[in-house]
Amino acid sequence: MNRRSFRLCCKTVAPPSIGDAMSMRRQITGFSNPTVKQLRALREKKQRRQQGRFLAEGLRLLTDARESGRLPEMLVMAEGREAHPLLTELEAAVERAGGDIIETSADILARITGKDNPQAVAGVFTEFDTALDRLDPASAPIWLVAQALRDPGNLGTMLRTGDAVGAGGLILIDDCADPFSVEAVRASMGAIFTQSVAQADWGDFLAWLRKGNGQLVAASLRDGALPYRRAPYAAPCFILVGNESRGLPEEYEAACDLRVTMPMRGRADSLNAAIAVAVLAYEALAALDP
Amino acid sequence: MNRRSFRLCCKTVAPPSIGDAMSMRRQITGFSNPTVKQLRALREKKQRRQQGRFLAEGLRLLTDARESGRLPEMLVMAEGREAHPLLTELEAAVERAGGDIIETSADILARITGKDNPQAVAGVFTEFDTALDRLDPASAPIWLVAQALRDPGNLGTMLRTGDAVGAGGLILIDDCADPFSVEAVRASMGAIFTQSVAQADWGDFLAWLRKGNGQLVAASLRDGALPYRRAPYAAPCFILVGNESRGLPEEYEAACDLRVTMPMRGRADSLNAAIAVAVLAYEALAALDP
Repeated sequence: MNRRSFRLCCKTVAPPSIGDAMSMRRQITGFSNPTVKQLRALREKKQRRQQGRFLAEGLRLLTDARESGRLPEMLVMAEGREAHPLLTELEAAVERAGGDIIETSADILARITGKDNPQAVAGVFTEFDTALDRLDPASAPIWLVAQALRDPGNLGTMLRTGDAVGAGGLILIDDCADPFSVEAVRASMGAIFTQSVAQADWGDFLAWLRKGNGQLVAASLRDGALPYRRAPYAAPCFILVGNESRGLPEEYEAACDLRVTMPMRGRADSLNAAIAVAVLAYEALAALDP
Repeated sequence: MNRRSFRLCCKTVAPPSIGDAMSMRRQITGFSNPTVKQLRALREKKQRRQQGRFLAEGLRLLTDARESGRLPEMLVMAEGREAHPLLTELEAAVERAGGDIIETSADILARITGKDNPQAVAGVFTEFDTALDRLDPASAPIWLVAQALRDPGNLGTMLRTGDAVGAGGLILIDDCADPFSVEAVRASMGAIFTQSVAQADWGDFLAWLRKGNGQLVAASLRDGALPYRRAPYAAPCFILVGNESRGLPEEYEAACDLRVTMPMRGRADSLNAAIAVAVLAYEALAALDP
């Protein structure tokens, strides 16, 4: 659906300001309002793809987005929210950019975001282009790569870790969780707006990587893997982690330039995927940029 | 409720084996069966405390538990499950120990565990004693400590990380998520059975710690914090992390023996709590046991 039809569902409560004909301010009072249904639908991946949009909640996240040059095309605010200078600025910026402002009840906002204690504000953003060939491997010393990662919380946490280590972005290989899901966006704590995200299948990723001099690194339990504290990391270093249950396919691991082992002192032989990536990324950061 | 009344709700389908009068094998076919309701109730903290029991799902987790010396008092198995030698062994061990065996439909097991694609087996365990004075600080070089941690997934992930770095256990300070919740147990990947867990308020924890020579370490953004890669970690090293949103209270941080900084190269000034703990724990492990 396009934005025009989206608007027609809503009652206009104030005229657009002069010289800013695109922006519209409306109030929604009913759970059955079609706009509410369309926003709720953004919790489903299929609907996100169809609408080409995703939801992000909370003033902090929306402020991070704005400071990273991303404004929501629609701002949804709960009545009775506390005034905040950053929210006032955000609202003005969205209006200037021709975005829509919706005021609704806290209950309806909770219905939209699917959270019991919703933030007082949410934004609807246009999905980003996730084509791999938009990325320049030489633009950052570290990149994170996840294969068949299923947990959106892990995915968001990896984006947040990527931001912290100064990674160029997160590359999602094969069938991963959706980086634009509410859960992934929430767990990224704003890093969805600062980190690049790309999606590719394994063959395309490897072909793209091998056109440059990227080093592909994976944690491994196999013979011949080097201790992760004494491995020759080289920039741009691509840290690859596999699916939460199955790990990396054997042939993917074999295609890596460097296989490293991490101490496992307990009963288990693996770490949470986002944890393993973070420990390796901080190790690579220390090695590459001491 | 006691185990006797728990049993009376169920239809016995096979007599207990000779010489093993306590164990009972039953079949449950209805969603409204009181046992199903009681097991479902274990998803609520209040009910777990009242019953003194918690749920763990999956053959892998239950096998980890058994190898760590913990058997469920009740084993719930889905009909139509695939045979597995480890499950056969587990079943026999539960029967020998006088535990109950319940067979039910996959749908009812899904209802109990609250998971759409449930594992074929779940176990009901007696909750462990989480008194702090049961722990011996000198028994391990590393301990993890979380303050007001709200996310059960983070809590379970920390248990898993603790297992990997050979930590003595996880100490939960103030009002944390419940380590016996289905989500925390699931995220721990079995480490709930291998790691000690204690719960205490800050004052009691600090008094307990100061009776020994434990070193309390926190990640910090304040002046005077040392780079985490060059800090003088000393065993037993207690790595403390605060609440996901608020971080550590200032006075808690001030009470630490060592404050360390980690590189933050992006927009954000913090990592996910479980990630920060893991990077510091692996650093301490390398320093203490190179």
